[in-house]
Amino acid sequence: MSNDHLDQQIEFILEMDKLKSVFRRSYVSGTDRKENDAEHSWHVAIMALVLCDRANTKIDILRVLKMLLIHDIVEIDAGDTFFYDDKGAADKSERERTAANRLFGLLPKNQEKEFKNIWEEFEEGQTSEALFAKSLDRLMPLLHNFYSKGKAWKEHGIMQDQVLNKNKHIADGSKELWEFASSLINKAVENGYLAK
Amino acid sequence: MSNDHLDQQIEFILEMDKLKSVFRRSYVSGTDRKENDAEHSWHVAIMALVLCDRANTKIDILRVLKMLLIHDIVEIDAGDTFFYDDKGAADKSERERTAANRLFGLLPKNQEKEFKNIWEEFEEGQTSEALFAKSLDRLMPLLHNFYSKGKAWKEHGIMQDQVLNKNKHIADGSKELWEFASSLINKAVENGYLAK
Repeated sequence: MSNDHLDQQIEFILEMDKLKSVFRRSYVSGTDRKENDAEHSWHVAIMALVLCDRANTKIDILRVLKMLLIHDIVEIDAGDTFFYDDKGAADKSERERTAANRLFGLLPKNQEKEFKNIWEEFEEGQTSEALFAKSLDRLMPLLHNFYSKGKAWKEHGIMQDQVLNKNKHIADGSKELWEFASSLINKAVENGYLAK
Repeated sequence: MSNDHLDQQIEFILEMDKLKSVFRRSYVSGTDRKENDAEHSWHVAIMALVLCDRANTKIDILRVLKMLLIHDIVEIDAGDTFFYDDKGAADKSERERTAANRLFGLLPKNQEKEFKNIWEEFEEGQTSEALFAKSLDRLMPLLHNFYSKGKAWKEHGIMQDQVLNKNKHIADGSKELWEFASSLINKAVENGYLAK
């Protein structure tokens, strides 16, 4: 890669700072502060390193890490769409595609293509790696919600059925983690963290 | 891995939330807010994906990513030691080793060993992967300082000689990136971001 491209790469890296100002609905444990996309992406990558043996099939962990590290970058332009916001979900895909074009377009051509492919693989959720990465991306907010006694669920009036419906796909990446997640959801209802 | 270990793994993952409250000296671009270790770890992992072809030798990018994702975890207990704080550096190693024992000790035995090995490889800085990971960990704050017009350098009275001395090891991982970094340092002095 020629030195010319270094400027483009540095510009992309600096642009990434903006992901630290895209806030999610979930809270950082033990604080009153909402989590941002950059910290979330790190946390879910750590989760992948720890839980990689729990996938339904043998997976390429490097590919899973790449997906999780870049999966939310498009939210720099498209914003965070709340997991339970079906209205926001309607044009999410178009907003995110436009964002992917601009953001990954900052990179040199070969890397633009590579990063877009990884992001698309995650979005399409067909490969074993994408299915597992998506399972973790779903499991993390469940954990945060449970251990903050349902703070974000209560704020947004989320009910047990919605949580079960949206999260049952965890099983597509890891049956073992879905077993754990569904028992966590039941416990959340028992403890009054989540409305029945 | 048996199901028993899942509780330990989840405990470790939840404990990781605390890295989001360990603050560094550098600022998130375009904000007045200091960056935390979790966002930094994500950002430097992205940097590795983008700049991996710039390493002096062929590297295993998976190993580099693992190192960068976990390199700051020990700061949950040991705190962030400022890069230019030579006094703080004196007992840093001991504080961080104690932290590594407690934090990685939350994991099941085989993973405790794996994570400790990765962290130690980074700390020792002998392998090509560790040298490159360390180069990126040094380059990132340089970028942040330059593009925030030397905000953190000025706050802490840091001078050009210190920056050159501490950062020249970027060349050990990537001569190309050190060439870029040293010209950035010179430009910082010219622009009045960094004291001569």
